[in-house]
Amino acid sequence: MLEINADRLWQRLMDMARFGATKAGGCNRQALTDEDAAGRALFLSWAEQAGCSTRLDEIGNLFIRREGRDKEAGAILIGSHLDTQPTGGKYDGIYGVLAGLELIETLNDRNIETDHPIEVVVWTNEEGCRFSTAMMGSAVWAGVMPLEAALSLQDSSGVSVAEALQATNQKGSELARAGDVKAAFELHIEQGPILEAENRVIGIVTGVQNMSRHWVRIHGQEVHAGPTPMQGRRDPMRALSRFLPRLYEMAEGIEGGRITFGIIEAQPASNNTVPGLLTLSVDIRHPDKAIYDRMVTQMHEIIEAACADEKTPVEMEKFFHAPGVVYDAACLDSVRAAIAQFDYPHMEMVSGAGHDACNVSEVAPTAMIFIPCEGGISHNEAEHIETEHATAGANILLHSVLHQACR
Amino acid sequence: MLEINADRLWQRLMDMARFGATKAGGCNRQALTDEDAAGRALFLSWAEQAGCSTRLDEIGNLFIRREGRDKEAGAILIGSHLDTQPTGGKYDGIYGVLAGLELIETLNDRNIETDHPIEVVVWTNEEGCRFSTAMMGSAVWAGVMPLEAALSLQDSSGVSVAEALQATNQKGSELARAGDVKAAFELHIEQGPILEAENRVIGIVTGVQNMSRHWVRIHGQEVHAGPTPMQGRRDPMRALSRFLPRLYEMAEGIEGGRITFGIIEAQPASNNTVPGLLTLSVDIRHPDKAIYDRMVTQMHEIIEAACADEKTPVEMEKFFHAPGVVYDAACLDSVRAAIAQFDYPHMEMVSGAGHDACNVSEVAPTAMIFIPCEGGISHNEAEHIETEHATAGANILLHSVLHQACR
Repeated sequence: MLEINADRLWQRLMDMARFGATKAGGCNRQALTDEDAAGRALFLSWAEQAGCSTRLDEIGNLFIRREGRDKEAGAILIGSHLDTQPTGGKYDGIYGVLAGLELIETLNDRNIETDHPIEVVVWTNEEGCRFSTAMMGSAVWAGVMPLEAALSLQDSSGVSVAEALQATNQKGSELARAGDVKAAFELHIEQGPILEAENRVIGIVTGVQNMSRHWVRIHGQEVHAGPTPMQGRRDPMRALSRFLPRLYEMAEGIEGGRITFGIIEAQPASNNTVPGLLTLSVDIRHPDKAIYDRMVTQMHEIIEAACADEKTPVEMEKFFHAPGVVYDAACLDSVRAAIAQFDYPHMEMVSGAGHDACNVSEVAPTAMIFIPCEGGISHNEAEHIETEHATAGANILLHSVLHQACR
Repeated sequence: MLEINADRLWQRLMDMARFGATKAGGCNRQALTDEDAAGRALFLSWAEQAGCSTRLDEIGNLFIRREGRDKEAGAILIGSHLDTQPTGGKYDGIYGVLAGLELIETLNDRNIETDHPIEVVVWTNEEGCRFSTAMMGSAVWAGVMPLEAALSLQDSSGVSVAEALQATNQKGSELARAGDVKAAFELHIEQGPILEAENRVIGIVTGVQNMSRHWVRIHGQEVHAGPTPMQGRRDPMRALSRFLPRLYEMAEGIEGGRITFGIIEAQPASNNTVPGLLTLSVDIRHPDKAIYDRMVTQMHEIIEAACADEKTPVEMEKFFHAPGVVYDAACLDSVRAAIAQFDYPHMEMVSGAGHDACNVSEVAPTAMIFIPCEGGISHNEAEHIETEHATAGANILLHSVLHQACR
């Protein structure tokens, strides 16, 4: 059975982690910093040693290519990112890029030719922490975000993406535009607890949840806690007590539904005054678009009915929305076929978070593969994966790609 | 029918409001400031013109006295305060003091002698805003607070009560100790909306609610809103959704019960993270001690059960407690007898807030009388009362006192 070189993959993960290494064992390698450029240079040197051609596009997406027998055939694209959060880990993104390179090295080692060319891409600014749009490079490439909008994003010091691309020598001459891609795969750590909890090594990611975030602002009447009888109050907390159980009941009654209230705040925040204003955030998600839409509608109805009963006017504002993604059936079949060759415990699942693959799927057949991360912890210096899981995921990536790359 | 001089009372309210007058039409006459001392001096000058003797005690409580036929008989005590909040109004406290003086003036005008002496007291530092114990002077006088504890309280500049008493010449030689008081009355604005809502002019205040305030801290598990299924979460907001409706149901099911959640806050306050900590304040009140105690017990049981179900450990901390007061039956009968002589719309009620009369009731038979204030608004420069209501309240005070002062 063809397998990747586990030691080389792991060694390169550790080598890459030196750039922007933090004392707590994580990485601070934010997009288009000197550390990011240094990490990319190391990756490029490995790619050139592996005989790959390289290209850089106008938004800094970095492609390496191993030719196929048929130079005109669509590429098999493997992509993720090398940038990190300010207190990020060693694996989020990096693992998917280096597993792609390792796949090429393995094919080289065994002198295996493919019909289709294989490309590994490093997308620019996936994290969206320095420049505030996550998955920026893949969004421009997929035509989801205009190039000019991306170039003009500024970091907190006022440095634009355009300036940072120049300063770090990451501005390429190639158009940031999707070419001929037959199939695309992204291998990533799960960043959630499900695989670990279910004791599985591989997640076949069939899609990404539909999601949105909303502000709910409920206006009450500020009155003194003592003299004012309960009946006469217009109390936003009582409105909350009416709709909160119904919202949980609604979301829990729907397989795969998620609802989260992460922020809540009362004003004037006096312990003996009924609040005049209660603000809370609602994050709502479901993999299926129709069910998701129904959840959002029901959320509005439930909150509005409760606030009408309580005579507390309510405003709702959607401040974030990410449409769901259903990954490509043929690409998913390639992943399933790869798994069939190994005895890794696996499961099918939906991603709770967005990835570059969401953008890629707009223009090319795409699928994702997850491996577990310890405790579901990510965006954290303590991010950790097992070497056997890293090996397993790279093997599944290898065989998924081969399933598509060979006629 | 004997009535007070409404014009004189109103004029004196306006005269007193000049001390510490604010641009917005309110008063800033905090305890033991020069403005407070100036207001007291004006009051003293009126009392002396009215032929009263005057005394100052060691905590600055100021008494004026109109002798009765029986000099050995217990006094009828009328008391409130002249100090205000930093952005206070013209009536909170002041009205009760000046209505007492007006009562004496009215008896003088008509040459009415009483068997019992009548005293009007100005209690020191009722507001508790400059020095942080509210109802301080009456508490010391009633033996509820040690004199030394009161004298050592400091304002935000480090000035102690002892120093402020010296600096404003309000330190008296008399012991701050309750003497022989047959009956005590405090006339006050309601500082709540009930009388106005019920269209009543006089409130017969039969007692003060038992009350306490509690912190509830619920510990959850911070997890990402996307990947984590609802079943696996330990979500403090879901614990809240379990107990909040039951707490409202409990309080609303009890006649006269009050529950208020004035402060609520989630941490880390990230819109896509289940909170790791939810903190809220609970203010709980009831006039009847046994029912109040049962409410507090039930509150604990309801919150603890919900948090146990959700597996979110909870801590509860009582950070404020004020025992309830039941006013004296005979004093209340005197108020009712006074009302019987007028056709003022009235109602019996329980005070939601504390007053000096709570302390006085520890050592003497006591009752309170309320008049409406516009919109229930108090501790506010916009505090407003109707002149007819001021007159009505002072007339009821007059006849309540006469009912006790004449054998």
